[in-house]
Amino acid sequence: MSSLTEQLVQFIEAKPIADADLAKASDYVLDALANTRAGQSTEPGRIVKAWGEAAGRDPGREAFQLGALTHILEADDLHRKSVTHPGCVVVPAACALARSTGADGRTFLTAILKGFEAMCRIGAAVGPAHYRTWHNTATCGPFGSAYAAGTLLGLDPRAMVHALGNAGTQSAGLWEFIASGAMSKHLHAGRAAEAGVVAAELAAHGFTGAPSILEGPRGFFAAACPDADPEAVLRAPDEPWQLHLTSIKPWPSCRHTHPAIDAALELAPHVDRFRKVEAWTYRAAIDVCDNVQ
Amino acid sequence: MSSLTEQLVQFIEAKPIADADLAKASDYVLDALANTRAGQSTEPGRIVKAWGEAAGRDPGREAFQLGALTHILEADDLHRKSVTHPGCVVVPAACALARSTGADGRTFLTAILKGFEAMCRIGAAVGPAHYRTWHNTATCGPFGSAYAAGTLLGLDPRAMVHALGNAGTQSAGLWEFIASGAMSKHLHAGRAAEAGVVAAELAAHGFTGAPSILEGPRGFFAAACPDADPEAVLRAPDEPWQLHLTSIKPWPSCRHTHPAIDAALELAPHVDRFRKVEAWTYRAAIDVCDNVQ
Repeated sequence: MSSLTEQLVQFIEAKPIADADLAKASDYVLDALANTRAGQSTEPGRIVKAWGEAAGRDPGREAFQLGALTHILEADDLHRKSVTHPGCVVVPAACALARSTGADGRTFLTAILKGFEAMCRIGAAVGPAHYRTWHNTATCGPFGSAYAAGTLLGLDPRAMVHALGNAGTQSAGLWEFIASGAMSKHLHAGRAAEAGVVAAELAAHGFTGAPSILEGPRGFFAAACPDADPEAVLRAPDEPWQLHLTSIKPWPSCRHTHPAIDAALELAPHVDRFRKVEAWTYRAAIDVCDNVQ
Repeated sequence: MSSLTEQLVQFIEAKPIADADLAKASDYVLDALANTRAGQSTEPGRIVKAWGEAAGRDPGREAFQLGALTHILEADDLHRKSVTHPGCVVVPAACALARSTGADGRTFLTAILKGFEAMCRIGAAVGPAHYRTWHNTATCGPFGSAYAAGTLLGLDPRAMVHALGNAGTQSAGLWEFIASGAMSKHLHAGRAAEAGVVAAELAAHGFTGAPSILEGPRGFFAAACPDADPEAVLRAPDEPWQLHLTSIKPWPSCRHTHPAIDAALELAPHVDRFRKVEAWTYRAAIDVCDNVQ
C-alpha cells in the first residue's frame, strides 16, 4: 500500500490538464503579483525588502521575499475548504524557480496548478482543530511550494514524494502573533514558500524525506491535527482542479466589507440625491472591520 | 505581567557570566565544528554541500549548511533535560553572524552561552508528549539560534523578544522520517539554525513577533506540547548556565555503545591473552546499535 503522499502525487500527475485550466492559473499569478507589488508599500513590506537587499540570491530567498510581500495586504486569493491562501505561497515559489530554470509558460502554469492542488487538498484534511492554533496557509504552504518547485525542477514521482516529506517536516506557523498584532503572518507565507523550494531543490540532489509524512504515527496529522480527516486528501477526485475552487477578491479589503462596497458602487451614480447613508451589517463583520485607523 | 519570553530574556541578560563559562563555551564550539567537518564526508553531507554551492551567500544560508552538516554523525553534544543537541543549531548560527558582524571572541562565546540557555530552558518545558512526534532539537532550536544571532546583532531586549516570537512561530520538525530512514534530521538542524538567524535579522530591521509565543492560547505550548511544563523555562535560576549541563560525547557513536568502548580500551593492552570476547548489553542498546552495515 503506497503512502498518502505517494497516492496524492499519482493522483495529481494523472489528472488531465486542459488549456482552460492553465488560462485560469494565469489569473491567479496576476492576482498574486498585484498583491506582491502592493505589499511593498507597507511597513512590513519595507522591512522585508530592506532585509532582502542584504540576503543571498537564490530561488528560496526570492520565494521568501515574494511570499512575505504577497501576504501583507489581506487581498490575496482564498481556498475555503482548506482555509488557505495558496497564491501567496505557490506563485512565489513557481516564479522563483521559473526564473532560475528558464521554464516556458506552460510548464510554469502547470506548476501553479499542481502546487495549488497539493496545498488545497492537504489543507482540506487538517481539520478545524488545527486552525485554532496553526495558520493553515503557513503549515500547508510548504506542500504547495514544494510541488510547484518540484514540477519546475522536473522531479520524478519518487523525488517529488521526498520533497513533500521534507516540506511537511518544515510545516510551521502559529496564530499567536494576532494577540499583539505582530508581523509574523508575512514571515509565515515567506518561509512556507521558501521551505518547499528548498525541499524540492534538495530532492533534486537526492536528499530523502518521509513518504508517510501525512498519515504516519509521528507525522503531520498526528502531531498537529487532532481532528484530521486524512481521506479528504484524495476525496472527490472528479472535482475540477482546486485552483478553480479558489476565489479572487474583487476588492482589496476584508470579505466582510464586500457587500457594502458592491452596494455603494451601484448607488454611486445617484449619490447627489442622498442626504445620509447608513450601512448595517452582522456582528463578525463589525468585530473584524470596525477598526478605522 | 510580562510574558514568559520577556522574563526569559530578562533572566538571561541578568545572569552573571564568568570567564570559566566562556572558556567552557569554546569546548562546545570545537566539538560542533569537528562534527561539521566530519559530516561533510557523508552522503547527506555531500548533498548539502552540493546544494549549498548554488545557494545564496548570507548568514542564514551559512547557518543552514553548517547546522545540517553538524547533525549528521550523531556525535554532537546532548542536553538531557531538554533532549536537544544545542551545539548543532546554536554554534552554526553564532558562527555565521560572528563572521558577518566581525564580532570579537568574547561576544561570540557569550552568544553561544546565551543561545544554549534559551534553547535548553525552553526545551526543558516542552514535556514528554512533545517528543513523541516532534524532534526537540528542531522545534526548540530556533529559540537558541535566534538568541545567539540576536546577541551578535546587538538586539535590545525588546527586539530580542520579537526575534524569539518569530523563532517560535517557525518551530518545526517531525520524527516521521525515522520510519523510512530519510535524511530529514539534518534538514531539521539546518532550518532551525537558519530560522533563528532570519528572525533575529528581521527583528534588527523592526519586524515584530509574538511576545506570548510560548504560553499564549495560540502559541507553541498550546499547539505542540500537550503536557508542557511552562514553569520549567525559569526553574532553578541558580543552576549554572545550561551549557555546563550539556554533555560532549567522548566517542563518536551512540551513547549506548560507550560502556563497551571504554571496556575494550581498558582491555586492549591484554588482547593477546584472549581467545574470544563476548559483550552483553540491554535491550534498548541492541535495538538501536545492532545494525552493522
